[in-house]
Parts: sequence; C-alpha cells; structure tokens
Amino acid sequence: MIEKERMPYRIAYLGPEASFTYLATKGLFPQDQLLPQTTIPGCIEAVAADKVDLAVVPLENALEGSVPLTLDYLFHEVDLYVIGEVLLPIEQHLMVNQAQKEHWEKIEGVYSHPHALAQCHKYLYYRFSHVPLHQTSSTAAAAKYVSEHPEQCIAAIGNASAAAKYNLALVQPAIHDFQFNHTRFFVLSKQNHRLPQLNTDHQPKTTLMITLPKDNRSGALHQVLSVFAWRQLNLSKIESRPLKTGLGDYFFIVDILSDEHTPMMQGAMEELQALGCNVKSLGTYYLYKQSL
Amino acid sequence: MIEKERMPYRIAYLGPEASFTYLATKGLFPQDQLLPQTTIPGCIEAVAADKVDLAVVPLENALEGSVPLTLDYLFHEVDLYVIGEVLLPIEQHLMVNQAQKEHWEKIEGVYSHPHALAQCHKYLYYRFSHVPLHQTSSTAAAAKYVSEHPEQCIAAIGNASAAAKYNLALVQPAIHDFQFNHTRFFVLSKQNHRLPQLNTDHQPKTTLMITLPKDNRSGALHQVLSVFAWRQLNLSKIESRPLKTGLGDYFFIVDILSDEHTPMMQGAMEELQALGCNVKSLGTYYLYKQSL
Repeated sequence: MIEKERMPYRIAYLGPEASFTYLATKGLFPQDQLLPQTTIPGCIEAVAADKVDLAVVPLENALEGSVPLTLDYLFHEVDLYVIGEVLLPIEQHLMVNQAQKEHWEKIEGVYSHPHALAQCHKYLYYRFSHVPLHQTSSTAAAAKYVSEHPEQCIAAIGNASAAAKYNLALVQPAIHDFQFNHTRFFVLSKQNHRLPQLNTDHQPKTTLMITLPKDNRSGALHQVLSVFAWRQLNLSKIESRPLKTGLGDYFFIVDILSDEHTPMMQGAMEELQALGCNVKSLGTYYLYKQSL
Repeated sequence: MIEKERMPYRIAYLGPEASFTYLATKGLFPQDQLLPQTTIPGCIEAVAADKVDLAVVPLENALEGSVPLTLDYLFHEVDLYVIGEVLLPIEQHLMVNQAQKEHWEKIEGVYSHPHALAQCHKYLYYRFSHVPLHQTSSTAAAAKYVSEHPEQCIAAIGNASAAAKYNLALVQPAIHDFQFNHTRFFVLSKQNHRLPQLNTDHQPKTTLMITLPKDNRSGALHQVLSVFAWRQLNLSKIESRPLKTGLGDYFFIVDILSDEHTPMMQGAMEELQALGCNVKSLGTYYLYKQSL
C-alpha cells in the first residue's frame, strides 16, 4: 500500500475481478479505482490513450515463462514506462458450488484457465484422471460459471479471492504441482516516474529493449553483454522476441539490477548506441513482494 | 522429398489433416504414414514411446515467436534429437461453405485458431470490424466446422489445403497482414541420425540447451557467449525459458550454424561443461525450405 495522500489513481488491470492481476493490483493500490479490462492490449491502450493513470498487466510466470503479448505490445505499439513491479505467489484451489459441497469428489467437469489447469496437471491426473477439463478465459470466469450452475456437479480451479467473491466452497486448497510458483506484474504509466521504494533490500531494476545492428548480429549479442559484464552490471533476465520483420530477426529484453541514472548505466547505454544498437529503456523501478 | 528406397516411416504430427504441420510433414515425407495427434506432447510422447519413428512439431513462428510447449517438453520431459528442420511460408485465406459462396461478404462470424486470427488482424479490422471472431483449436478445425454448417453464413481462415479437403470456396486469398510470415518445424527422432542435406547452400545447424552454473548466473551468460564468439561460431538464435525451479531461473536454447562434430564445436561444448554449465545437444540437422 503506497502513497496515501494523493488523488486516487484510475487503474486498468487484466480482469475480471478476483483474477490474479486483480490481487496484485488491489494489494498495491487498495484505495484506488480499479477498472477491469478483458485483454492485455486493452489495459495497455487504456493508459496510452490517457483513459486511466496506470495499468497493471502480467509479465512473467515462473512455470509458463514470459507473457509474449505484454512484451510485444510494449515494444511494437506504445511508449510507456514501468514504474513498479509486483511479485505475487500463485496458489490454485479446487472449489465447487455450495449446493454440491457434499458431492465434490464426484465432480464431472473441471473449469479453469489453460495455465491453471496445466499448473495442477499432476493433481488432476492422479485424482480426477477421467474427468473432462474445460478451458475458460480466466480462473475468475471459471468460478463465476460454477456459481451460476448449482445443479451441475462441477469444479473450478482458481484463487481464494474468486471462491469468496462467487461464494464457492473451497474443497481442496493448494492443488498446484509446484509450490514456488510466482507471477510478475508490471505497473505501467505514460510518465517515467517511479513508485517509492518500500523495502530497502530490493535493488532498483531497469528494463531495456535492445535491437542489434542488422549487419552483424551473431557476434553483436556477445558485444552487448560485454558492455554490461565489464561494468559488473548484473543481468537478472534476458529474453528474445521476434522483430516481426522476418524469421531470425529478434529484439532482446534485458533486466539489469541497477538504476538507469547511475554513471555506469548511462555509459552502458551510450556504448550500446555507439555499437549500432537501438536501445529503448522502460525505466527503473522497485519490486513489491505480495503475499496471498 | 527424401530417401525413397526404404521402409515407410510412421510419423506423428500435430493434426488434424490439412493443418500447417501436416503441410510441412507431407512435403518432406510424401510417401510415409502420417498419424495426426491432437497435441504437441502427444506427438513427442509418441516418438519417445516408440509408437512412431518420427514426430513433426511446430517450433517457432516469425510473428508469434517460439512455441514454448515444444521447447519445454524437449528440455524437461524427453531425450530426443532433431534430425531435420522444415521452413514453411504461412498464408492465410478466407473460405466459406460452397452454399454461402454468393453471400460471403455478409458473413456473420469468422472461425480460426487464435494465431491465425491475430495474423489477419488488420484485414479483419478494416473489412469485417463488426463480425464476431470465434477461436478454434486449429485452422483445419475451423474449416471442418464451416463445412459442417452450410446453413450458416460464416467463414474460416486457414490454408488452401484445408479449403480443398473440406470443399470450401476460397473467397479471399492471402489475407494475412505480414507477407514474410514463416513457421519452423522440428523433425524429432529417438536416434541421433540426420536427414540428408538436400541443398548445399544450407549450413548445418546445431541446437544446444544450456543451463548456467547456479552460483554465478549474471556473468555466466556472457562467458557462454564468449566460448562461441572467439571461435567465430555464429549463433542464429538464443532464447531463455524457465527452469521451473523458481522465478529468475532459466535455461537457454542456442542455435549455432555449425556441425556438432567439428573440432571447434567439440571444444566449445567441453569448455561450457568446464565452466559448470549443463549442456544438452539436440543434434545437428539441415534445413528444408518448402513452398506452398
């Protein structure tokens, strides 16, 4: 929870209410106006078009990897800044309609987002191997569907907030296969400001999007990493995404554990440009770790 | 088309018939027995369990990027080799039931795989902005659905082979937004053999999956690239994927334009292991470029 003494922000997030993005947003901005959007581009366009002050979108999951749509949209379509990063543990629970609470072991269908179904693969395989799985657009949408069909003996997989919102019985907690699962979210703004640092243990992080010079790509990535390595600037992540100009053309997203305003980072960015790279900084930001 | 004088292979591919993977497989193996599977893990498991000789799966699209499921399954679940790579141009066409051929401009719904819908985004936006889009599990499944509903004025988006198979009228050819779009496919086998080189212009390519030493990750990727750079071994691709041991832990998939049996590559792989990296080679293979 940050910055009490100000006008409430209008914040677009990947909905519906009770989605994991909702939890990430509500935890950081409990007193602000949260506006659910149905898609990631919808969230990003809302802040780019000044319809809202901020947007919160998922960036990366520990099991599924990056969310390509978020990275591609930030690179190709808009000029926005990351002003904060939220880390949220992901816990998936099995929930049924209150009317079916006594019969939950006889469920005839399980509803959830494809990623949530994948995250509970082993549980479902060993416990409900013959029960058909149905994909929904979000875990919250699955919970809503189950709440609206009390006559059906079916279950949803989702977070505890969805169970509460749709008054479902949470019959099997924590059925996800990997206990360390987390998702990272970006808080996006049109201005390159910075949400305040709440925990001094967390270093500032800068995200750069780098396009290599076209004539000499194969050795260029090594050169790019050399620029950071000799300065002892630590990379916490590097990822490639298609430039959409042809197969084999990529841009790179690099997370560096340093502030873009330090002399070392300024020098690194200048050198990258001198090497012929195109460098787009998404800004420097701090991490907010949330619990469920 | 390769190796006529042999027993036909049994080949699992990502179906259904008339999918893009089917076209990639049929072009390279016209006389073999093609067995459609409903999922990528289904294809990979079929060859791992000796139910088939080979499997063909999509690896990377020029617009959408890598297929995470293929990379993750090859790293985490099985020990298979890449024995060939197929490059297929992707063209998307608008097709309707023959019964609706005269009314195609009044379609009330468009069906296709989410990637195909995305690849035709601009066309659909300018031409059919108010027509609802419906997602299907594949472009071929969309064509099948349209063929089975002659009374509905709806269209599918897919390849020409799907139009032919389901006897649909191809009313608007090549409606995809980007003309250079291609998809790469891997031909997988349990044995580290190699499909023959058909075009001597194409260099051999080796794919390595590299896990960095746990104690020193931030500088280690730079060291890894140095191993290739000073040997002038050209990387055509580098990609990171989650190790699934915690957020921030990745393995890297590297494509190198060289044969794994050359002294330079042998030296590079030995040095990587000496640096504490875990190196898994998927083998060396040749490219097959296909036309539609």
